[in-house]
Amino acid sequence: MSQLRILVLHGPNLNLLGVREPSIYGALTLEQINAALETHAAGLHSTIQCQQFNSEGAIVEAIHNALDEKDGILINAGAYTHTSVAIRDALSGVKLPIVEVHLSNIYQREAFRHYSYIAPIAVGQISGFGIDSYLLGLEALVRHLQREGG
Amino acid sequence: MSQLRILVLHGPNLNLLGVREPSIYGALTLEQINAALETHAAGLHSTIQCQQFNSEGAIVEAIHNALDEKDGILINAGAYTHTSVAIRDALSGVKLPIVEVHLSNIYQREAFRHYSYIAPIAVGQISGFGIDSYLLGLEALVRHLQREGG
Amino acid sequence: MSQLRILVLHGPNLNLLGVREPSIYGALTLEQINAALETHAAGLHSTIQCQQFNSEGAIVEAIHNALDEKDGILINAGAYTHTSVAIRDALSGVKLPIVEVHLSNIYQREAFRHYSYIAPIAVGQISGFGIDSYLLGLEALVRHLQREGG
Amino acid sequence: MSQLRILVLHGPNLNLLGVREPSIYGALTLEQINAALETHAAGLHSTIQCQQFNSEGAIVEAIHNALDEKDGILINAGAYTHTSVAIRDALSGVKLPIVEVHLSNIYQREAFRHYSYIAPIAVGQISGFGIDSYLLGLEALVRHLQREGG
Amino acid sequence: MSQLRILVLHGPNLNLLGVREPSIYGALTLEQINAALETHAAGLHSTIQCQQFNSEGAIVEAIHNALDEKDGILINAGAYTHTSVAIRDALSGVKLPIVEVHLSNIYQREAFRHYSYIAPIAVGQISGFGIDSYLLGLEALVRHLQREGG
Amino acid sequence: MSQLRILVLHGPNLNLLGVREPSIYGALTLEQINAALETHAAGLHSTIQCQQFNSEGAIVEAIHNALDEKDGILINAGAYTHTSVAIRDALSGVKLPIVEVHLSNIYQREAFRHYSYIAPIAVGQISGFGIDSYLLGLEALVRHLQREGG
Amino acid sequence: MSQLRILVLHGPNLNLLGVREPSIYGALTLEQINAALETHAAGLHSTIQCQQFNSEGAIVEAIHNALDEKDGILINAGAYTHTSVAIRDALSGVKLPIVEVHLSNIYQREAFRHYSYIAPIAVGQISGFGIDSYLLGLEALVRHLQREGG
Amino acid sequence: MSQLRILVLHGPNLNLLGVREPSIYGALTLEQINAALETHAAGLHSTIQCQQFNSEGAIVEAIHNALDEKDGILINAGAYTHTSVAIRDALSGVKLPIVEVHLSNIYQREAFRHYSYIAPIAVGQISGFGIDSYLLGLEALVRHLQREGG
Amino acid sequence: MSQLRILVLHGPNLNLLGVREPSIYGALTLEQINAALETHAAGLHSTIQCQQFNSEGAIVEAIHNALDEKDGILINAGAYTHTSVAIRDALSGVKLPIVEVHLSNIYQREAFRHYSYIAPIAVGQISGFGIDSYLLGLEALVRHLQREGG
Amino acid sequence: MSQLRILVLHGPNLNLLGVREPSIYGALTLEQINAALETHAAGLHSTIQCQQFNSEGAIVEAIHNALDEKDGILINAGAYTHTSVAIRDALSGVKLPIVEVHLSNIYQREAFRHYSYIAPIAVGQISGFGIDSYLLGLEALVRHLQREGG
Amino acid sequence: MSQLRILVLHGPNLNLLGVREPSIYGALTLEQINAALETHAAGLHSTIQCQQFNSEGAIVEAIHNALDEKDGILINAGAYTHTSVAIRDALSGVKLPIVEVHLSNIYQREAFRHYSYIAPIAVGQISGFGIDSYLLGLEALVRHLQREGG
Amino acid sequence: MSQLRILVLHGPNLNLLGVREPSIYGALTLEQINAALETHAAGLHSTIQCQQFNSEGAIVEAIHNALDEKDGILINAGAYTHTSVAIRDALSGVKLPIVEVHLSNIYQREAFRHYSYIAPIAVGQISGFGIDSYLLGLEALVRHLQREGG
Repeated sequence: MSQLRILVLHGPNLNLLGVREPSIYGALTLEQINAALETHAAGLHSTIQCQQFNSEGAIVEAIHNALDEKDGILINAGAYTHTSVAIRDALSGVKLPIVEVHLSNIYQREAFRHYSYIAPIAVGQISGFGIDSYLLGLEALVRHLQREGG
Repeated sequence: MSQLRILVLHGPNLNLLGVREPSIYGALTLEQINAALETHAAGLHSTIQCQQFNSEGAIVEAIHNALDEKDGILINAGAYTHTSVAIRDALSGVKLPIVEVHLSNIYQREAFRHYSYIAPIAVGQISGFGIDSYLLGLEALVRHLQREGG
Repeated sequence: MSQLRILVLHGPNLNLLGVREPSIYGALTLEQINAALETHAAGLHSTIQCQQFNSEGAIVEAIHNALDEKDGILINAGAYTHTSVAIRDALSGVKLPIVEVHLSNIYQREAFRHYSYIAPIAVGQISGFGIDSYLLGLEALVRHLQREGG
Repeated sequence: MSQLRILVLHGPNLNLLGVREPSIYGALTLEQINAALETHAAGLHSTIQCQQFNSEGAIVEAIHNALDEKDGILINAGAYTHTSVAIRDALSGVKLPIVEVHLSNIYQREAFRHYSYIAPIAVGQISGFGIDSYLLGLEALVRHLQREGG
Repeated sequence: MSQLRILVLHGPNLNLLGVREPSIYGALTLEQINAALETHAAGLHSTIQCQQFNSEGAIVEAIHNALDEKDGILINAGAYTHTSVAIRDALSGVKLPIVEVHLSNIYQREAFRHYSYIAPIAVGQISGFGIDSYLLGLEALVRHLQREGG
Repeated sequence: MSQLRILVLHGPNLNLLGVREPSIYGALTLEQINAALETHAAGLHSTIQCQQFNSEGAIVEAIHNALDEKDGILINAGAYTHTSVAIRDALSGVKLPIVEVHLSNIYQREAFRHYSYIAPIAVGQISGFGIDSYLLGLEALVRHLQREGG
Repeated sequence: MSQLRILVLHGPNLNLLGVREPSIYGALTLEQINAALETHAAGLHSTIQCQQFNSEGAIVEAIHNALDEKDGILINAGAYTHTSVAIRDALSGVKLPIVEVHLSNIYQREAFRHYSYIAPIAVGQISGFGIDSYLLGLEALVRHLQREGG
Repeated sequence: MSQLRILVLHGPNLNLLGVREPSIYGALTLEQINAALETHAAGLHSTIQCQQFNSEGAIVEAIHNALDEKDGILINAGAYTHTSVAIRDALSGVKLPIVEVHLSNIYQREAFRHYSYIAPIAVGQISGFGIDSYLLGLEALVRHLQREGG
Repeated sequence: MSQLRILVLHGPNLNLLGVREPSIYGALTLEQINAALETHAAGLHSTIQCQQFNSEGAIVEAIHNALDEKDGILINAGAYTHTSVAIRDALSGVKLPIVEVHLSNIYQREAFRHYSYIAPIAVGQISGFGIDSYLLGLEALVRHLQREGG
Repeated sequence: MSQLRILVLHGPNLNLLGVREPSIYGALTLEQINAALETHAAGLHSTIQCQQFNSEGAIVEAIHNALDEKDGILINAGAYTHTSVAIRDALSGVKLPIVEVHLSNIYQREAFRHYSYIAPIAVGQISGFGIDSYLLGLEALVRHLQREGG
Repeated sequence: MSQLRILVLHGPNLNLLGVREPSIYGALTLEQINAALETHAAGLHSTIQCQQFNSEGAIVEAIHNALDEKDGILINAGAYTHTSVAIRDALSGVKLPIVEVHLSNIYQREAFRHYSYIAPIAVGQISGFGIDSYLLGLEALVRHLQREGG
Repeated sequence: MSQLRILVLHGPNLNLLGVREPSIYGALTLEQINAALETHAAGLHSTIQCQQFNSEGAIVEAIHNALDEKDGILINAGAYTHTSVAIRDALSGVKLPIVEVHLSNIYQREAFRHYSYIAPIAVGQISGFGIDSYLLGLEALVRHLQREGG
């Protein structure tokens, strides 16, 4: 079986990780998260490409680029989770399995963070476990792809 | 009478037309829609410029560029219809007549697609007729300009 | 190909056109609109029958009468757009393609005019272009019928 | 390091798994899920106790019994997720780390399933991955306990 | 004491000032506002850098760039005030004092302009005084920095 | 000065007066109310025409008929007060001064009776005084007409 | 004991039964329902009169006519169930026992069909059993009248 | 029959009449209104005492003083209509018939003026007729007292 | 044809019947209702088993026990109608036809009794006829089973 | 006078008192509260029976058992205060005077704790005084019973 | 230990006690309540000062005067409970322990009486026990002060 | 040019400044704020009169007194900002330019403090800068008056 190709998308402000509100998001940098994801992907017979964008339009286009190039998308859309219909539409449009992750538990924060435009079109959602949200999300996505593709 | 100059703006994900959810949006590509619009414009003594952007800010700037260069704007703002105050403000700011169109009938879809920030500042809205929404919208805009300018 | 038979329905108060609030609805009379529609229908290889009713029940029955007699319905239900489940049910019941039109842009008016009971069961909606809403709506309906029936 | 002791709680109707709406919940039985969890726990240097209850009060008491006996709770409270303040209070009361899981993606279902009384007091939430929600949830809980206890 | 370094951020459409709806926003251009701010800053022993962006992502990145480079941010986020969680998160992330200003009195306009995502994380808000909103906001920010830093 | 011509419109179920729920509406019949109104009108140098309809459409048409024939309308639209946009539009359309009356105090009854579609387009509203609501309403309308027409 | 006299009222669009959306309303015609009701009434020592109206006003007047002529009303007000205060007031006004029936289960359909203006003033409501809703409703009404009148 | 004793209460800002927003409230002063009311009262075999207060507490106490001294209260509570539970409770407490009046049509103004705390405990309400609201309200109150007391 | 096997479920507090609020629920005891249901079932070629539980969990389990043992369920879930997602899920899970009944007319009582979690998954609902709600509900369920099974 | 017999009911999780969140509920155990209540009852010429249940159904049945055995009920329904219609119905059903108490001030906590299903059917409510809520509540109940029974 | 000094504040209309709606508030006068409170205070080693005001501003100032003069405040703010942010702010400002009492059970009355601005800043609330609400409230306040001050 | 005459109004509880919740409002007294305002006014060629009232009615009257005596009003209405229609009406009535200020950032506090009745009728609003809110507000008002009056 060939390797599964996963796109990992980080939304706005996630480049600040390790700097921004560590009491909420933890002290790891985005580079450290990406490195851990790569190691984990290798163990799951898959390869990942990691991208971070602060612009909604850039995320939309990165999703478009996954068409025919990737087998699934792992996304932490950050603030755009709660405001972007465009990202939701892009994810629906490319028809790839989506797993949504969040570092913090979004249900413990402001009310406007409780609604996700992405959740209703994702396979599933993982929130609250810091870097583990990403690692478990990758695992969930790979297993989902293996089952569906099997 | 000189030709009317119309800006046709396509919002996010519309570059995926023909690929994305054809059961909702139909099988035509954006290029085919643009070609049909050009033919139709010619018959209406007007010229069109077609642009598609996935970024909210790029749409805002395309609208600004229409100032003094165009006589009206035909816009399918896609997902930004429902979330963008910035595009609404840009459209208000350039003070050109606006016609809003949608390929699908937005009133048959999720509740968050029923509200349009653009409708209250547009001349009118056409939704649900696939490519015909664009062609009829162009016609409506040209007739409006002819009547106002007459 | 035989001619398409279209029922054009005008709802309450539209008999006042040319009299009632011309700043909102324009100066044309209903007769002038009907005449323009007839001319336009002829050019589209279709025939129209125009009816105006102030009573909700009469509109319901006019819709029933279209069963087996018409190929589609072009409707401006006026005030009943926002309050009548009975007209919606009649339109659903006869299973004909519906195009909904409005002279004024209903999204620029009182909040209770923003909701349409008809829109979710129509092919599409056109609002804000005065008499052009009707003419474009007729065109949209005929093209829809030709495509579906082709 | 001694083994981590995890309580796995299944809420109402989960004893029907494999019977009830397999298109939503999958074809696995609860026994199969518990067996998979036990195997997974062994690999994570932890032991689990699995319990299923249809009564809200019985779940409350099972949570109380975890006091001083367990290191963390993995819970799929099923329908009570959305209606039970008593279970939330029990979970708060024993002050153990909680991980909330759901077989189906609760954000794709009826609106009353979108709110969780448990999420705001849990470490995190995983939903939508079938049996993998449990397995990943166990992993998340164990890692959380190891990090906090380290 | 060294000069305080202030970032002045103007949101979408503010480049149209003097053109766009002067009855609401006044006849001054953005250049004139920036010039007045520079003069005022000089009198307050501070230096300003003025930037205007139409893209949400560009504003997010401009805020990131202020990290370690600026002492405070004076922001008129325009339309994004009411829709952008990403800008709010960026402002929270860099942990600089924020002063929010608006040319027009946002409480006299459409209901969707009454809510600001920025206000709850700003030191304070000034709205309604045209260019004076900026000048007074700069003063408020400088005094706040002097008091906190004193 | 010629006599003022007033149309008095009674809405649905008011023909039951004296029969229907006398504890709420009193024991007078509609004929007695009309007779009292006629006597009162005579003393106010005006003439009235009284009509009662149970059909929304009939009320709409009675209002249309008042165009050029009447100087003002006194209306108790009964249940349609709370549900009819069509009657509101008819009243707006004929551009005559409207006075709205109710026998019972609508603010002491079910919540759905607290909103009136007519009140925002009427000169004023009188509710709660039984037959006196009509008599005082007639007086208010006549005085309004005299002042405006004076 | 003399025969009980029951008025059976069918609201708008019910004349389309057998034609309109049979997947929701079943394949029986209104005539067949009326015939079954007559047979059933005979067995219950009562006589029925069946009427169907598409106009709200006509239903109001049919209810008025029941005054002193009928002992109870069995009503399926169709779409007017959800929009008509006038019919509710007529039913309250004649002070006869009312039983409300619906062919389909209104709680499985659009949200606007969940509220009934009639239910709070009826003896009871039966919905979801097709023609059996009528037959059981007739039985419930007759038994209620026999008990009250006994 | 002895004279009826009526307390006329004017709420906050009504002392500004003739000064404050004459386009809404008219050009008459409060003194002129009081004089007209006295003349009218004389013709109705009643006497009035007129008081104006800007303080909620003073109005509460004026109502208390009416106990045993007055037969009814005519009140225009102005802004307190919409915010004062205390005045409502005072009016309920003295158990006198209340007539509520407003100079302007409160249903044409801001939404917060549409709710009246007084209306549910008043005999009735008159709004929109300028000084005539007071004169008709006095008449309504006197007739009510005569009928109840007769 | 073999006898139809019906489970009759009574929810919390229904054991108090004849004691609890007889003005709302009538004077019959639960035993009398069960006896009447048994007699009625015999006449309908069916057998019933009647159970009453005050615990939500016990009702859930009684529903589970019906799996493969019963052909349909007649349920008056009492207070749990309005609060229990667990009972709804159990009813969905066993995939048996459900008829929902209520002794009182729930639409005449407190607002929180107007919503039923069961109605959207039931065949139909009968409310307001006292013991007749049960008897008619049994009839409706048997007829439904006969038709479906025929 | 014979002793008054009071049932004291403690709802879910109250057996954790002294363990669970002492910063909210205080350090006393339930046994200490019960002992203090017994002492207090003795001084008030009454006897108490104290019961704690974690199951909603068990509380319902404990209330049923009070019928004819007790003179009043003092209840802290804990979490069920905010979610249980069944307990409310049981309390209404036995027709005994109810006093509702809460250890913490429920109006300072999460919004879902602000509504009590019990308060509208209780004599009164006491919240916020720790064990004193119980002691004062017992006193209030005894005085109420003495006054009513006197 | 020196005597505790308690301010007892009665809000608007409470001077009418014994007069106003005795079915709701009982037949005692305010003087009788104050006398009972004084007797009770003496038994609790405390002294009280009782004040009643109809004006919101006067209550605010009475609270200010308690600063340094009193140890706690027992308040029945009457109607201002539900409308006054100013009284809430005054109570917060003086930082004294507050106990809120109500004669009637506010949760059995109109919806606008269910919210208290005071409850979230009070130690606790007692409502529904007539004069006993005051006596128990005094006791609760004294015990609270003794415990805090011990 | 003659001096501008400014009325500075402080609402309820502001006399407690320096005492009340200094973590929110700062440690300055009202006298110190007034002194700073006087100094600042002198530098702006204007004179101020400062008044503080705890009574809504007194503030209304102070605003009335400004008629013809003052050129503008600087107001911190404190708690009345959120509850007083009467003060809004007084401010509208005198038709003077209004600047609204708040010491604290009202958008960081309880939800009921987010709405201001004054903001929609003010020139602008400044909140969150402590005493600087007043000083900047004075400046904004003076500049506004100079521009308008120039």
